[in-house]
Amino acid sequence: MGSRTTILGLGAMGSAITARLRDTGHDTTVWNRTAAKTAPHAAAGSKTAATISEAIHDADTVLVVLLDHASVQEQLTPHAAELTGKTVVNLVTTTPNQARETAAWAADNGIAYVDGAVMAVPSMIGEHHARLLYSGDEHAYDTVRPILETLGTAEYAGEDPGLASLKDMALLAAMDLMLLGYVQAIAMMRTTGTPAADTAAEVEAWLAAMLPQGRELAAIVDGGTYDTGGQSVDFDRFGIQSLITASREQGVSAQLLEPHRKLLEELAATGRGDSDWIRIIERLTIQ
Amino acid sequence: MGSRTTILGLGAMGSAITARLRDTGHDTTVWNRTAAKTAPHAAAGSKTAATISEAIHDADTVLVVLLDHASVQEQLTPHAAELTGKTVVNLVTTTPNQARETAAWAADNGIAYVDGAVMAVPSMIGEHHARLLYSGDEHAYDTVRPILETLGTAEYAGEDPGLASLKDMALLAAMDLMLLGYVQAIAMMRTTGTPAADTAAEVEAWLAAMLPQGRELAAIVDGGTYDTGGQSVDFDRFGIQSLITASREQGVSAQLLEPHRKLLEELAATGRGDSDWIRIIERLTIQ
Repeated sequence: MGSRTTILGLGAMGSAITARLRDTGHDTTVWNRTAAKTAPHAAAGSKTAATISEAIHDADTVLVVLLDHASVQEQLTPHAAELTGKTVVNLVTTTPNQARETAAWAADNGIAYVDGAVMAVPSMIGEHHARLLYSGDEHAYDTVRPILETLGTAEYAGEDPGLASLKDMALLAAMDLMLLGYVQAIAMMRTTGTPAADTAAEVEAWLAAMLPQGRELAAIVDGGTYDTGGQSVDFDRFGIQSLITASREQGVSAQLLEPHRKLLEELAATGRGDSDWIRIIERLTIQ
Repeated sequence: MGSRTTILGLGAMGSAITARLRDTGHDTTVWNRTAAKTAPHAAAGSKTAATISEAIHDADTVLVVLLDHASVQEQLTPHAAELTGKTVVNLVTTTPNQARETAAWAADNGIAYVDGAVMAVPSMIGEHHARLLYSGDEHAYDTVRPILETLGTAEYAGEDPGLASLKDMALLAAMDLMLLGYVQAIAMMRTTGTPAADTAAEVEAWLAAMLPQGRELAAIVDGGTYDTGGQSVDFDRFGIQSLITASREQGVSAQLLEPHRKLLEELAATGRGDSDWIRIIERLTIQ
């Protein structure tokens, strides 16, 4: 049954993945905790399994698309022996340490393990711009790569099974803070009756032009001396304080901007007012 | 002396503006608190004034490029009578209320007043992509527009003299949060030995693809009901908590992400867990 792929979990993402595999000519077996969700897949040509054991038995490759890490532990742990010798690809969103924990459990049980992070919404599955990151056992990754490459653009991040998840989380954190930038700007401009749509259009054009600054900051971080003579901690403190004051003057809380101010104050208080402001990154390391 | 323009302040920005006006055929008079800085401008063809009174007397239009709002108050206030009937364009970075304060003082003294915000570094002055926002007296703006348009792309934001500054601050706040996104991602990935430059390149491509999401969020804000069925407060709480946990697992403080989590918790605690997550913008309004 080597060419059959089992998909555990038929939420929106699991369903999209199953449909894509089926559409690209793969034999699929599906299992879902609530059996009713298997019906449309059965109608479309997937085999349905009544139990996880049956689903596992059917295939060499098991794609896990359950709700969260707790579900993975709950559903997979009892089936360790049945999974031995097979390849598990865990696409559940987890933290890096949760991925490492599952990888260690898999290694202990002779299960080839690849951890994945899906940087796409279900409707994007199968498209080139759906990006899926993988890490863990490279040999196992190479084995299942033909399957994974049907789901979107597949990238192998490295042997540390936490890497795919970490990179996913790092990029999502960057996106989150960027979106908070929209929130802050929209909130400030709304106080003058400016529609959010107008501010968002302005912000989008502005941020697109400013994106390359990230590269310049990264070069300073990699340099490690923080003495390039660019915008200093003290200069930036003045700038951030102006933003905070402007926001409050308009009746808008500056709480989204406060952590930056606090980090700069800490650097200034330890005699680093002349450093490049990006040195705040050092203060993020937990002692 | 109608065609002569006076520039008060010869820091990097004042010098760049003076040079640009000179290069485009304008007669310029310069004044600086430290007189030595006028020498290169005198050599290049500008007239130098020994006192502010002399500088003001020389021109119908006075561009103010001093250090900060306090300098504006200190240097201009004693010369209110001499400025009556002239046009003052204040390019100093101020908060919206500081701009409104200077505008009120100007109105009291019969001075035509335009407040400006320079969204560019000095080396960009004169180029199309140097963006300068203006607000305040529209008639005065129209009068000095030919001068202002030589400095870069000029945009009139509205009669409220605080608008140019507010828009400047709103866009800078958005940029600041976006750059903090780079900082957070770089800090997380560095724990695995990934160079900052590699992470920045990934983040840049990712954020460029995600920028249009701001428009979608803005549409929800303008809609005002926060019930579009998109990503909910409760879903986002789970997501942000994962980012925070992942960051801490890697030994990186999550303090930049905490305000977002806190706003979501506040919404959930007041029964708005089902709302679109962007409803956090309501919590930014200071009661």
